[in-house]
Amino acid sequence: MMTDFATWVAARQTSFESVLQRLLPAAEVAPQRLHQAMRYSVLDGGKRVRPLLAYAAGELTGAPVARVEIAAAAVELIHAYSLVHDDMPCMDDDVLRRGKATCHVEYDQATALLVGDALQSLAFQLLSEQPLNDDAAKQLQMVKLLALAAGSRGMAGGQAIDLASVGRQLTLPELEQMHIHKTGALIRAAILLGAHCGNPASSQLDRLDRFGKLIGLAFQVVDDVLDCEADTATLGKTAGKDADHDKPTYVSLLGLPGAKEMAQRLHREALESLGEFGEPARRLRELADFIVLRKF
Amino acid sequence: MMTDFATWVAARQTSFESVLQRLLPAAEVAPQRLHQAMRYSVLDGGKRVRPLLAYAAGELTGAPVARVEIAAAAVELIHAYSLVHDDMPCMDDDVLRRGKATCHVEYDQATALLVGDALQSLAFQLLSEQPLNDDAAKQLQMVKLLALAAGSRGMAGGQAIDLASVGRQLTLPELEQMHIHKTGALIRAAILLGAHCGNPASSQLDRLDRFGKLIGLAFQVVDDVLDCEADTATLGKTAGKDADHDKPTYVSLLGLPGAKEMAQRLHREALESLGEFGEPARRLRELADFIVLRKF
Repeated sequence: MMTDFATWVAARQTSFESVLQRLLPAAEVAPQRLHQAMRYSVLDGGKRVRPLLAYAAGELTGAPVARVEIAAAAVELIHAYSLVHDDMPCMDDDVLRRGKATCHVEYDQATALLVGDALQSLAFQLLSEQPLNDDAAKQLQMVKLLALAAGSRGMAGGQAIDLASVGRQLTLPELEQMHIHKTGALIRAAILLGAHCGNPASSQLDRLDRFGKLIGLAFQVVDDVLDCEADTATLGKTAGKDADHDKPTYVSLLGLPGAKEMAQRLHREALESLGEFGEPARRLRELADFIVLRKF
Repeated sequence: MMTDFATWVAARQTSFESVLQRLLPAAEVAPQRLHQAMRYSVLDGGKRVRPLLAYAAGELTGAPVARVEIAAAAVELIHAYSLVHDDMPCMDDDVLRRGKATCHVEYDQATALLVGDALQSLAFQLLSEQPLNDDAAKQLQMVKLLALAAGSRGMAGGQAIDLASVGRQLTLPELEQMHIHKTGALIRAAILLGAHCGNPASSQLDRLDRFGKLIGLAFQVVDDVLDCEADTATLGKTAGKDADHDKPTYVSLLGLPGAKEMAQRLHREALESLGEFGEPARRLRELADFIVLRKF
């Protein structure tokens, strides 16, 4: 019998933590302070939404877990590096992340800069140093996929659009463009990279791509809703920061009820995109529910 | 008849500039400000020592120039990103680079941070999006090679060692460890990646590896000598900065004559490591001369 979702999530989160423990350079290896700061910034944090999506997509395409977890780690390292850089004084200037001091506060700014840089390199090392697909040419495509998702026309580009938007009133399409890049690109990459560790049919990839785009956007809309509703204590980060900085959000554009309605619509469309996959897509459907219905 | 070295260098530098022009995202593509800043930080700058080494190594192994130039661009983008981040106020706080304002001065710190991040992603995109070796598995090894050279046990690690060394008196082996990582790793990668675009014999790779290590170290020793001798006007960067920051250098450790002697020794050993290659290694030998004998 298939385990229930909560048990599956907990088991994956626990085993993924060991994966990261193993793949990050040991704290005793020189340069120690950098390696300690890398581990501090990655380990013991977050819900691991992107890795969970990679695992779930891998289940759909029959991918070996030992491969999916490497691909998932690569994506999570890119995510972690972006948080470290994003928290720096010249960006969002955040002092608290996941309930603990941000990297540049716990260490220093120069170290935080290098931590992010080195985490990005490590992500690409992971994608290239052992077979993740029997076909090396396909694995090269995985490297390209992550590079595009992380780069100036993906996540980093989304952050640039975000920077340019502070203090401006964005239209809904502009806000969507920002988030499709800033958050969506990496969520989509997590799903596709998990799938590519198996042997996905191209029809599967098309549907997963669509699912990834929808769920990535839903994730951000829900984030805006939660940020509006939550207080610092329950969220583990400084709540209301976006409003403080006069950043456009789905809530500021659509109002709270409108944003919630949009999240529901994206959720429904995401589930529809998985329509024909049946039981093998169960975890993906459950994750879609989890992302939209989460309260934290 | 083979062209002389100066002509070869000038031709390569010119064509490489077009390669970078082509491979960097166009300034009109959104997000425009980020793409403009990426182009500002990479184009029209530097002697392109790493690309020249890649071209020269590619000549030794019979690599197609159209492949070598992609690999060379990947290395140069990693180098350029490291300069952008290194110049930031939380690191070296430099306002001048290659005779023009540094990225964070010309744009802003947040943009400089993203420029560096996106240039690194682009480097890995370049190494993965088209065939650079007929064997995709070998090309994956090229990705790994660059990731290791850039990461916490390569360039970024060297910068961390550098940070930790400010205000301390290093021993010669400690200083060497720093530079082997900070500068040497990427110079070695440039040579090996250029070679891997062809079909190098493993004995060739071993010797190129040794050549790369020696010339990388020589490069740094000469840099220290030049930094000590040069003034701001001729160097195009703020001269004497290392001494100002109380950073250890080969000159501070060995004195000016000692550092010069060390550069000569490394130069000689580097040339010896190419001993048996004959005429196909001519450009590599000439580059070794160029690196050690340069006056700027």
